[in-house]
Amino acid sequence: MSLRDIINKNLTHWVSGNGPDNDIVLSSRIRLARNLENVPYPNRASAEEKAAVSKSVIEAISQQNEIKLHYIDLADLPEVEREVLVEKHLISPIHAKEGMEKGVLLNDNETISVMINEEDHLRIQVLIPGLQLDKAWEIANNLDNLLEARLDFAFSENWGYLSACPTNVGTGLRASVMVHLPALNLTNNIGKVLGAVSQLRLAVRGLYGEGSESAGNIYQISNQITLGHTESDIIDNLKSVTTQIVSQERQARKLLLQEQEIEVKDRIKRSYGILKYAYRISSEEALKLLSNVKLGIDMGIIEDVDQGVLSELMVLIRPAHLQKIDGKELTAAERDIKRAELIQTRLNM
Amino acid sequence: MSLRDIINKNLTHWVSGNGPDNDIVLSSRIRLARNLENVPYPNRASAEEKAAVSKSVIEAISQQNEIKLHYIDLADLPEVEREVLVEKHLISPIHAKEGMEKGVLLNDNETISVMINEEDHLRIQVLIPGLQLDKAWEIANNLDNLLEARLDFAFSENWGYLSACPTNVGTGLRASVMVHLPALNLTNNIGKVLGAVSQLRLAVRGLYGEGSESAGNIYQISNQITLGHTESDIIDNLKSVTTQIVSQERQARKLLLQEQEIEVKDRIKRSYGILKYAYRISSEEALKLLSNVKLGIDMGIIEDVDQGVLSELMVLIRPAHLQKIDGKELTAAERDIKRAELIQTRLNM
Repeated sequence: MSLRDIINKNLTHWVSGNGPDNDIVLSSRIRLARNLENVPYPNRASAEEKAAVSKSVIEAISQQNEIKLHYIDLADLPEVEREVLVEKHLISPIHAKEGMEKGVLLNDNETISVMINEEDHLRIQVLIPGLQLDKAWEIANNLDNLLEARLDFAFSENWGYLSACPTNVGTGLRASVMVHLPALNLTNNIGKVLGAVSQLRLAVRGLYGEGSESAGNIYQISNQITLGHTESDIIDNLKSVTTQIVSQERQARKLLLQEQEIEVKDRIKRSYGILKYAYRISSEEALKLLSNVKLGIDMGIIEDVDQGVLSELMVLIRPAHLQKIDGKELTAAERDIKRAELIQTRLNM
Repeated sequence: MSLRDIINKNLTHWVSGNGPDNDIVLSSRIRLARNLENVPYPNRASAEEKAAVSKSVIEAISQQNEIKLHYIDLADLPEVEREVLVEKHLISPIHAKEGMEKGVLLNDNETISVMINEEDHLRIQVLIPGLQLDKAWEIANNLDNLLEARLDFAFSENWGYLSACPTNVGTGLRASVMVHLPALNLTNNIGKVLGAVSQLRLAVRGLYGEGSESAGNIYQISNQITLGHTESDIIDNLKSVTTQIVSQERQARKLLLQEQEIEVKDRIKRSYGILKYAYRISSEEALKLLSNVKLGIDMGIIEDVDQGVLSELMVLIRPAHLQKIDGKELTAAERDIKRAELIQTRLNM
């Protein structure tokens, strides 16, 4: 199998698909935290209790035909495969760690994942490309309803859905978008924009979760509050803020072309040249350059590469993907070389 | 006419041709200083006297059929064209400056040039690709003989050929080679090697003459002494030192591949990538990157570009060439953009 085939085979829908406003919004995500009534939360449950949780969830899924999910027991997966799921954003880093009775349900194109026995008994996730929070919500809500018809979810009239951590109580809903904001960075407006976002009860994080740097000018924006608002309030608020950010990023891009055309073209084209020819590259540098290249594609400066390249490569160049694609463990130095090769294969596709 | 055609049209033989040891020795040059008997040196001669010098030299040339040279009166050339001749190393920067009765004789492929009324009445130069000092000497000596049969050269039994500056008295011979020594630089051996050269009565200069930096790892090595040695002593000494330098540079290249293979490959390939995609580039950066690319070609790391690229481009990317090719005056910022475009056209040829 050629490297091209392997790349295609390893792509998950949210990175390879297209969606609205995909020039700036890489993906939309809905996550629902749910727990079974009268069963201790996973951190306090026994192995038997957790096994029972898995069993009931798998049964509930098998009792309906609308959504087709297949179950993976994480204990059956080698570490590298678990890490691949983390890099695809399908399970959390904690869920990938050694542990009993952890599992995940996935649909074929990996837009739906249900973690079983992570922090909560169930974490339903829908992750799709572009700005489509409503659609993601619709899919997640539908799956939630199908499950709730067959399982007893812990629910209080006062508090709503109960969860292991109080920050998820209520709707159990976390809605988020992943946005690419290079022009706001280049025009030094990012601080102002993200500061304003924080004041709107939304959290901003870098690409790899809490506290991480904004590698590749990619930010995750999500609701902080799950309690005291309806699901549609939460989603509408995030959607409206995201739409404003998209418009500010687009304005910043126009401004860049007006005021720094030569500098910007040069920066973008050089980034592309280095990515196309480097013999080795760190993931940090690769993300930085890929961010420039995606900006170039979106601005019409680079014409022979498609828009999805950043989403695809930011996943494919991570350590577990590289090792899976290469079929063996790699040292950091070897990964830098394989990463460069992979990027070049993808850029020439 | 396409940019490719224009590039080809503007190439002079010493940059576009091939010669022995062309991986390291870019060119060999022989220059003879000659003056006419009983005529003041150009800096003291009247316009009439200098006009008479031009006239006799042109006549002498026309009286023989062996070597075909055409005369250019520098006063007839616009400044940019005079600068183009400087950038091709066919006339000196001083000779390109405004002044009376300055001229140059050139053959078709520009391997032979004879400056008239520069510092001396005649400066015969032969400039050919690769390490071929003997061949360059043969051509220069032959032309010198043809001229001497028809002109009275100022000659003293004690001192040999007389010249305006005492450093040229005797043979009037300056032999030089232009060498590309990137690996000696990268392995930090360049100081040692060039220091040894200086002790062998040879002068080392950067690409653009005395005191200039070693832009692009290119050095000119020439004899310092013209008096008290025969022409063949001078040439043999330079040839032997150059051969040793070539061998040391080749060893340094082997060492580089053994000890820093990954770093070197990465540096070379990134340089190539930037040159192929930059939107603008300064001539200093371009030379630095072209030096890496030529090293890559010579080491087999870059395969789709020919060896002559450094010699050609180090001439073509200079200001006068860029303005001539573009057909109009360019600001420094405009030149940086045109330079990038020209390099990319050449690299894709």
